[in-house]
Formats: sequence, C-alpha cells, structure tokens
Amino acid sequence: MSGLKVVALAGGVGGAKLVDGLAQIVPAGKLTVVVNTGDDFEYLGMWVCPDLDTVCYTLAGIASPETGWGRSNETWRVFRELGRLGGPTWFRLGDQDIATHLERSRRLSQGHSLSQVTQAFCQAWGIDHTILPMSNSPISTQVDTAQGVLPFQDYFVRQKCQPEVRGFSFDGIEDSQPSPGSIEAIKEADFIVICPSNPWVSVDPILAVPTIRKHLITKCVIAVSPIIGGQAVKGPAAKMYQEMGIQPSAYAVAQHYRDLCAGFVIDQVDKGHETAIRELGIEPLVTSTLMKTRQDRQRLAEDVIAFGKQIC
Amino acid sequence: MSGLKVVALAGGVGGAKLVDGLAQIVPAGKLTVVVNTGDDFEYLGMWVCPDLDTVCYTLAGIASPETGWGRSNETWRVFRELGRLGGPTWFRLGDQDIATHLERSRRLSQGHSLSQVTQAFCQAWGIDHTILPMSNSPISTQVDTAQGVLPFQDYFVRQKCQPEVRGFSFDGIEDSQPSPGSIEAIKEADFIVICPSNPWVSVDPILAVPTIRKHLITKCVIAVSPIIGGQAVKGPAAKMYQEMGIQPSAYAVAQHYRDLCAGFVIDQVDKGHETAIRELGIEPLVTSTLMKTRQDRQRLAEDVIAFGKQIC
Repeated sequence: MSGLKVVALAGGVGGAKLVDGLAQIVPAGKLTVVVNTGDDFEYLGMWVCPDLDTVCYTLAGIASPETGWGRSNETWRVFRELGRLGGPTWFRLGDQDIATHLERSRRLSQGHSLSQVTQAFCQAWGIDHTILPMSNSPISTQVDTAQGVLPFQDYFVRQKCQPEVRGFSFDGIEDSQPSPGSIEAIKEADFIVICPSNPWVSVDPILAVPTIRKHLITKCVIAVSPIIGGQAVKGPAAKMYQEMGIQPSAYAVAQHYRDLCAGFVIDQVDKGHETAIRELGIEPLVTSTLMKTRQDRQRLAEDVIAFGKQIC
Repeated sequence: MSGLKVVALAGGVGGAKLVDGLAQIVPAGKLTVVVNTGDDFEYLGMWVCPDLDTVCYTLAGIASPETGWGRSNETWRVFRELGRLGGPTWFRLGDQDIATHLERSRRLSQGHSLSQVTQAFCQAWGIDHTILPMSNSPISTQVDTAQGVLPFQDYFVRQKCQPEVRGFSFDGIEDSQPSPGSIEAIKEADFIVICPSNPWVSVDPILAVPTIRKHLITKCVIAVSPIIGGQAVKGPAAKMYQEMGIQPSAYAVAQHYRDLCAGFVIDQVDKGHETAIRELGIEPLVTSTLMKTRQDRQRLAEDVIAFGKQIC
C-alpha cells in the first residue's frame, strides 16, 4: 500500500462514501479526490458547492448520517427565520453549513481560488488527503428537459428530478481548466477510481473539463457502478438512463465509460452482466457494492484497491 | 392623541428604546421613524444595517434584552463554525440575525430598495408603524481619528472606540436622497422627536441627508439628551464630545441641535443646565430620561408627547 497513489473522481453522497473508504486505507498524501463542481450555484448570495462539501464533511466525519449531505448535529435557525421573512428555502442549508458557504464566498470574493479555499477548509477539518475541485472556473450543469433547460439544482432539488431529461450540458466548461495539481495527480497515480456517482451529472462534468479525459485515457481506470439491480442507490441516475432511452443497468454504466475503463466493479446482484462487460473489453469485478455502514465503505475500497493492483 | 402625527429620528439602542415607548402610545400609522443608515456595511457579503435592525427588533419585541441589539433567544452556530474556519467574527451575528442579513441582501441584489425590504420585514415582524431608512443610497459614516480615517464599524466594534476622534464624514451623502415618504412624513408631522441617540454618528448623518434638515427647520423639533450627568448612557457619545474639545453634557447636546430644536428634554440630574438651555432659545423639559424598563420607555414617551403638545 505504502507507495500506491490513487486518484478518485467523485460527485456527492455515493461517491463520498467510497472516498471515505479509500481514505481509511490509503496513507495520507497518497489519495487525491477530484470532485464535481457542476452542481455549484449561487444561493442567497453565497457560493454553494454541494459535492465538495459532501466529500469534505464525510471525510471529516461531520456529515449528517441521516441524509449523507449537510452536517451532523445540525440546527436550522437561520432557515426558520429566513422562511418567516419570505426568503427562498427550497435548498435547505443548516446553520453550520451556512458558515461554510459564507466563509467560502468571502474568500472567493477576496480573490482566493476554490481550490485554495477547499485546501484551507480541509486543514481546518483535519482532512489529510487532497481534495480538489475539478476546476476553479465556475461550471454550471444544465439539464435539458421536456420543460426546457434547467440549472441543475432547479431540476434536482426544486423540481425533485420530475421533468423528463433529454440531455445535459456544462456551461463554462470549454473555457475551464483543471484545478492546479489535478493533472499532476492523475499523471502520478497508479490507478484512477471513478466512484459510484451519477455518470451523467457527477462524473461526466469532470470528464468534460478540457485535458482531464485526455490524461485519464492514458491511465488504468476502474469505475464502480452506481446502479445496482437496475436501480440507483440514491438519486436520479436510473431515471435519467431511462429517459435518455437506455435501459438502466450496471452494464449501461460500463458502456458509458467504455472508452476509459480497464476495470468495472458491479454488485453480486448484477453478476449476470459480467460476460457482457468483459465483451466490452472491460475487466469486471463482482463484489458487494452497497455501502450501508462505514465498514462497507472500507471493505469496498479494499476490493477496489486489490482489483487495481491486480489489473493495473 | 388620535390625530397627532409624530416623526422620530433614531439611531441604535438608545433611540430604539424611546421609539418603542412612542410606538406604545402613538396609534398605528401615526408614527414614522427615520433611522440612521450611516453604520450600514457589507460583512461576509451581506448588507448589515445595525440601527434599522435594532429599531425593528425592538419594536417587534424580539430584540435581545441583554444587549439591546441583536435577537432574543439567539444562538451562535454559524459564527462558531465560521470561527473554526478562520473567518472574521469581530462583528458578531447570531443565527436568526443572519437570516435578516441574507434575505435583505438577496432582495437588494434583486433590485428592491432598502425601504421596500424594511417595509416587508416590518410586515413579517408585525410592526404597524412606519420604519424608514434615512436614505436608500448607501451612506458610509467615516470616523477621522488619530489613527487615520476608519469606517464606522471598524472604529466602533473592531477598535472598540479607542482611537481618538477628530471628526466625522458621511461618504455618499451628497448624492443621496431621503427615502420615499420621509419628507412627506416630516411635512405632515405635528412635531419631530430626535431620540436619545449619538448626535455625531446617529443623528447627524440623518440631518446631513440633503433636504432633510431644510424640512426639519420648518417644524417643531424636540430632542431628548443622550447625555445624562455628563455621561452617555451607552456608547461613545461623551468620549467623542471630549475628543472634539467640548465638555460632554446635556447642554452640549442642546447646543449641537440649537438651530433645529424648539424643545430639549434633559434628566433631573442635569436640572442645573435648564437656564443655560433656555438661554439658547430652546425650551427645556426636566424629567427622568433613563430607560431601564419598558415602562420607563412609555413614561418618557408620554412626557415627550405632552411636551410637544404644549410647545408645538
């Protein structure tokens, strides 16, 4: 383990769980996490980065165990008052969480980059792995739906993923650059882990940042399926596949990443897809991928690391 | 009482107390409060209006009884976390209070004026009197000190009023306008009450808004001294008089307002100034001006109203 370097690509709750597992077994300084920032948005004048915060809160052990996002032992005093004043409360932010957004926004307005702010926060939270936003440029995932193009959080939270999806775009991505250190980390990594995050809106934005895919393609990449038994563990991934005209399955996700992946990790219930995945030229690993407990996270991380050592 | 219309000019805690007394005895719709906004400033990306909030919280019965500013039953979760992240916590904001600033800032950024936002908040808080910011333009009180020119909150909160004062200026005031309705309210008022607020930094900014003084000069104005026995009840008013080379006293405040006032209310301990004040051409009223209880506020308000009826 000691010399092994890993880069993980992650979105929100599901991705954060595997990152937490990896963080428990990969020595400090050897794990770099590149996190989706396409969900980031301005809300109440604050710059909110849901995936970055979920990953950081999870690694710091301060994430809400009930929701997976937000803080544990959270209180909601600000939002209760905000509601009384008629303010927008559709995207719920707890009191401790608000401190994160206020201070991040303050530092950004002073000219700090998102990765500098994230590094400072990780230090304050006692996180000894490297967490990088995919880019320091604002990138805004847009969901093309039957009701028109919606900014991601409008689709995801305000409209509860109800509008039928037609496609996705990532505003600002053409002119964006990977955050400092991310390409170096990819180059130095023994292998790359794509966490069980939503392929369309959590991982694709990372892959779409100019030059990231180009560098990944030269590396040994292992993805973990976020779809188990045709269902997403959390969130709208399966619904999105369906609405995009694709039968949702672990196999569909393997196809999604076929140009990129050397290995693909699926759950035992999807063992039937093993051969089809192999026929894509991707090595399958069948294991238990559902992470209910902290032990599950570590066990899956161990399986992924062992798999990487074996095939990379 | 029924037909009587009163306009009060107020700053923070002291002013808010007398406004609260007036609000208890003047019928709804007959009291207009014009509030200093020279202390307003941007903090953590939020637009904070300390005097407006103190007046509104006090009238709504939700002000902290311990401090006079901020909210009662307040919690400090956001600021505790902000401190852990290394954010600026020198100007303390409680959780409920932060909701006010977030929602105000959001509405301002959407193009609402400060008076529109204040009106909406007053409605939410059940305040049935009219609270007006002195202006909708940002005006920034600057304190000229031995350590250079300091924005008001830097002087007042961060440096705890320690730097020696040489003078005051109100950035942005030349191009400002009184907020809509304030000149009309002054014109229609039977008399004007200058609350026991700091003359230099709470009342002078209001008087310096173009056309406000011009209209006040035609009215019957009664001021209540914020100096009792040579001391300010709260805040740096007495220290400021001293540093400006003036012996702090109720008489000094009467002189401060001599061009404007028909009547001047002083405390019993300052009875010795009665004759000197009369010699300024101002009618003195000697009563108990210290407001320790809610009853004190109402009693002083009754004295002021009776005085106004008598001399105006």
